[in-house]
Amino acid sequence: MPEHTLKRFDEELERLSATISEMGGLAESQLARSLAALRERDTEAAEKVIVDDARVDALDEAVQEQTVRLLALRQPMAVDLRVILSSIKIAAALERIADYAKNTAKRSIVLSQTTPPAAAVTGIERLGRLVRAALKDVLDAFAHGDVAKARDVWERDEEIDQVYTGLFRELLTYMMEDPRTITACTHLMFMAKNIERAGDHVTNIAELVSFRSTGHGFDEARPKGSAAIYATPDAPAGTAP
Amino acid sequence: MPEHTLKRFDEELERLSATISEMGGLAESQLARSLAALRERDTEAAEKVIVDDARVDALDEAVQEQTVRLLALRQPMAVDLRVILSSIKIAAALERIADYAKNTAKRSIVLSQTTPPAAAVTGIERLGRLVRAALKDVLDAFAHGDVAKARDVWERDEEIDQVYTGLFRELLTYMMEDPRTITACTHLMFMAKNIERAGDHVTNIAELVSFRSTGHGFDEARPKGSAAIYATPDAPAGTAP
Repeated sequence: MPEHTLKRFDEELERLSATISEMGGLAESQLARSLAALRERDTEAAEKVIVDDARVDALDEAVQEQTVRLLALRQPMAVDLRVILSSIKIAAALERIADYAKNTAKRSIVLSQTTPPAAAVTGIERLGRLVRAALKDVLDAFAHGDVAKARDVWERDEEIDQVYTGLFRELLTYMMEDPRTITACTHLMFMAKNIERAGDHVTNIAELVSFRSTGHGFDEARPKGSAAIYATPDAPAGTAP
Repeated sequence: MPEHTLKRFDEELERLSATISEMGGLAESQLARSLAALRERDTEAAEKVIVDDARVDALDEAVQEQTVRLLALRQPMAVDLRVILSSIKIAAALERIADYAKNTAKRSIVLSQTTPPAAAVTGIERLGRLVRAALKDVLDAFAHGDVAKARDVWERDEEIDQVYTGLFRELLTYMMEDPRTITACTHLMFMAKNIERAGDHVTNIAELVSFRSTGHGFDEARPKGSAAIYATPDAPAGTAP
């Protein structure tokens, strides 16, 4: 294969990574802005998050096109093929994270018409901060091929799941104590679920960062703290009508 | 390229499609069995669905391996590359559908300890039947490269979203009318959401079936009936404590 083709291949690979990093930065910003819109009850900001989701989708399209071109340009083997295939998956995970941010923004608009329990909103913010920090770190790990950092992110998913489970139970309690909060709390539940799912995708990205470098993910079964969500909490005293 | 390599390539492509069809049949069966477990309050059947999810994951792994081998075997262009890349995405969608079935099975175990409103369980079953029928049809469309059938499935997503939205509002009403049903109803809400999301993945598969044959999905913006879910229904009279 002539040298200029190899050089072009390397340049395209670098461009692909740059596109993914750009997409990751945008997904992180969308998540941050959707949480700020919830906190500030700012429907205009939320609308902007919804509109800007198209920018993430456009970058996902760009990743698809670049990977097809790379696959056609050269018959990539071993590490190159791994980088290309993991790029498709990382882009898909970032696209999903941005989708969850968009859905969170949509629900924050509905919530701005209600008075959700303030403590529950604070709980969502706390969960959101954890997931945002994990996303930021996994993007750093991706940019530097830092498997140790990716592993650290992967291990933090357990804490995220625990915070989610606690928040879910808290929301059930609010609903039982005051049925007028039911509609607001169900939206907050789905928001919490969105953010927890975004965290799962961050964990998947962490595994893919490892896979790119080493050919495998992290050995043990993924830490999972959310099994407790399926337990039925007892109704707090005094909630039965 | 020698003829035997071409023949081997075609055989591998056929094998890839057969693996995806097998995976689709299994995902459909998982969804059916999770809904039956909910209806029959059969925790043993639900446990089996949870365990069998590993079989779907194994088939997804097989698809990944086969696509990597195909990409390495030949530098596929145009329609072959499209078939291979869409196969990865269809397998990912089927894996997600099976995940939703697994989650539905998990929640049905919790629900078996409660007395959820019977009408709500019937509503979930109705939604489940629609999504199962759509999944079955899209798998037929995939097997026969039937774009017209895929388009029919794609158009039915609107009805699925409408049934979901109606069910969601119904569940809110039950919770407001009787706070003792809150825990059961939130599980039913997440089950309904799971099934609706499985329907979204069926719609994505329909688009990919079109993309494989024609190089593009269905033109118009996807039908979407779920925007109404974000509207806040008024609390029915008499629910405030």
